[in-house]
Amino acid sequence: METKVKKLSLEPYKGTRDFYPQDQFVQNYIFSVWRKVAESYGYLEYGASILEETGLYRAKSGEEIVNEQTYSFTDRGGRDVTIRPEMTPTVARMVAQKRKELTFPLRWYSIPNLFRYERPQRGRLREHWQLNCDMFGVDSIDADVEMISLAYDMMKAFGAKDGQFEIRINSRKLMNALWKYHYRLDDQQAYKMQKLIDKKDKITNFQEQADEICGFPFEFVKSEGIVEISAQQPFIKDGSYQFYQVVQKLNKAGIKNVVPDVTLMRGFDYYTGIVFEMYDTNPKNPRALFGGGRYDDLVGIFGVEKISGIGFGWGDVTTRDFLETYNLLPEYKPLIQLYIAHLDGYVEDANKLAHYIREQGINVEVDLTDRQVSKQVKTADKEKIPFVLVVGEEEVKSQKYKVKSLAKSEEKLLEKGQISEFVKR
Amino acid sequence: METKVKKLSLEPYKGTRDFYPQDQFVQNYIFSVWRKVAESYGYLEYGASILEETGLYRAKSGEEIVNEQTYSFTDRGGRDVTIRPEMTPTVARMVAQKRKELTFPLRWYSIPNLFRYERPQRGRLREHWQLNCDMFGVDSIDADVEMISLAYDMMKAFGAKDGQFEIRINSRKLMNALWKYHYRLDDQQAYKMQKLIDKKDKITNFQEQADEICGFPFEFVKSEGIVEISAQQPFIKDGSYQFYQVVQKLNKAGIKNVVPDVTLMRGFDYYTGIVFEMYDTNPKNPRALFGGGRYDDLVGIFGVEKISGIGFGWGDVTTRDFLETYNLLPEYKPLIQLYIAHLDGYVEDANKLAHYIREQGINVEVDLTDRQVSKQVKTADKEKIPFVLVVGEEEVKSQKYKVKSLAKSEEKLLEKGQISEFVKR
Repeated sequence: METKVKKLSLEPYKGTRDFYPQDQFVQNYIFSVWRKVAESYGYLEYGASILEETGLYRAKSGEEIVNEQTYSFTDRGGRDVTIRPEMTPTVARMVAQKRKELTFPLRWYSIPNLFRYERPQRGRLREHWQLNCDMFGVDSIDADVEMISLAYDMMKAFGAKDGQFEIRINSRKLMNALWKYHYRLDDQQAYKMQKLIDKKDKITNFQEQADEICGFPFEFVKSEGIVEISAQQPFIKDGSYQFYQVVQKLNKAGIKNVVPDVTLMRGFDYYTGIVFEMYDTNPKNPRALFGGGRYDDLVGIFGVEKISGIGFGWGDVTTRDFLETYNLLPEYKPLIQLYIAHLDGYVEDANKLAHYIREQGINVEVDLTDRQVSKQVKTADKEKIPFVLVVGEEEVKSQKYKVKSLAKSEEKLLEKGQISEFVKR
Repeated sequence: METKVKKLSLEPYKGTRDFYPQDQFVQNYIFSVWRKVAESYGYLEYGASILEETGLYRAKSGEEIVNEQTYSFTDRGGRDVTIRPEMTPTVARMVAQKRKELTFPLRWYSIPNLFRYERPQRGRLREHWQLNCDMFGVDSIDADVEMISLAYDMMKAFGAKDGQFEIRINSRKLMNALWKYHYRLDDQQAYKMQKLIDKKDKITNFQEQADEICGFPFEFVKSEGIVEISAQQPFIKDGSYQFYQVVQKLNKAGIKNVVPDVTLMRGFDYYTGIVFEMYDTNPKNPRALFGGGRYDDLVGIFGVEKISGIGFGWGDVTTRDFLETYNLLPEYKPLIQLYIAHLDGYVEDANKLAHYIREQGINVEVDLTDRQVSKQVKTADKEKIPFVLVVGEEEVKSQKYKVKSLAKSEEKLLEKGQISEFVKR
């Protein structure tokens, strides 16, 4: 019983991607570098569902995100649900839930996919994958230093050089002190300025809007200026001290491409301390590769005792752009090592041999078609599989197989027990 | 600027799961076995977005699934979208899209998460992860045999024994011939019977409903009966021949726990040939672990030339139940190998040492708190990290470190260049 069908689209849903094996290969490469470095620092992997109740984001992500950018809907049981736009609220919820059983400090990572309803453009899609690394239960700025060092080591593991990227850093604590004691704004003005600065690159009349919010001609303080202002105001001093100490400690640990930047804000409402973002120095790739910060009050929104947190998110889309720009992506190689073709009537023998070789740790694909042997071998070639052999009457009788290396065009007659060794070396 | 917040739930969304590191460990174990065996057969990984346009499922998944069981909604741009309830329509779409560039036959796998709106119960949640293995472009039943062999090898790789599971197998082609030539039902009656049989375990009045659809007392044919009926009717013979040949070939390849079962139907409308499911032989775990079949007309619904396909899906929830039942899950072990504690003021030295040891391929966690050393060491113990060392004045001076094995309570004084070797062995 067929349902009459309109012409179906062959495209993925707008702003999302299909990952064909060659794309998935790149994706897996990026994930594997992230995983390896995160695990080398002792971060443990966790995971969660892509659906959460909408209230979770209302609390602290920021109004714009929930009202304009999320995929939210009501489920068949009347619950308001959202496809996660970010992972931090989820991890804070998980930490709050099991805070009595967990051993602090916690170092956790995950590579979730996230959704934002946006106009797709370079470096920005509706769905992307994002490495999230978070640490809970450490108040000291050594945590801030580790977070940035970890991300830096990941850049190095990708093969990036210092001159190709820079880490910009700011402090919400410093900014809050500046709003209050330097610019003398009230809370509402300060919040509006924070939001305005966050979107300054997307608007054309930043200065005009800033002046209107402040009621005077707004001007960013210069780095040198902060030192001077700090000398007179203890809260500003407090914020800037912490801020410069992080930069200093990073420099001492060999990380020199860190740039203080009071124009760096980040979109989420929950940040309370250091915030940072990493940029390609190439102006053609103007999006942040990763960003994060300290959010000491987030776990507390669940009505439990406060647990300090810090973390970052690092998207796959901008990373891929970066690695392509600097030619840092590995060449595609299938994981298949040996292709077995067969003469008509010998597919069961081919399967038996494949089974035997697989048990020795080799990935073997068997051609199951009844095409000519030459066509079968051509398939292996197109798929870039390095070795191929043919099973037929002669091979079954002699129990010897000609294994051909496609790259080197060499051929060797081997017993079945020798094949895996030959393929491995 | 705080938004006033109602009490936020600590629980994940109904019918979904949080994966704390120990749960993620199990999940990663299951995925790694799937991956390893799939890759050993030459299957390549692909991926896609969890959102698809709703029309994709209207076409062939079956009305009940789209109307009652999917998470569907209209996006902010007016598009009808669905969170995927299954992966097969997506992979068929991807194959149809790039059919001109792809090298057939294709062997592909993916481990997507899927959503169904259902009442959560044992073995059945709203979100689950599912291995999908598919082959495109092979008409011969050798593909059917490989699919089932692949799944069987995965069960073996999990450590399952033949007596613990059985593979039930049926043929839609055989069933269609039986409906028409044996039961003499029209297309509509046949479709209704197919749907009824699919849900027979969830309803109490199967017989009553079956009799009503057929207009006579319905009785399943017995296996022996099929042979007899086949002798008289060529289409039934055709269906049953193919069906028994698969069983025979599997037996010949050493897979004996295959059971022909004319009551096996599967829910999707798109199957055209062999269908199969794998069951725990333990009646306490009555859900299928995996199921699949041949769907030769699915790629064609996109208005392109026909490409035959066959595949299966294998869920993580029932798998975890199975592995727990038979005690086949590995014990939890963190990936962290060494924990570095430190005396007050020596955190930078600890970090420096950690950096050095990480470069030798060891996963090292540094305690960044200012707690007493004994408390820091206790954290390592709780986290089950096998080795620990402390950095303080003495260690920095002598450049020698006491590395303690927590399991064996042994301790060794080592230079920094010797630590990674000691931890690795």
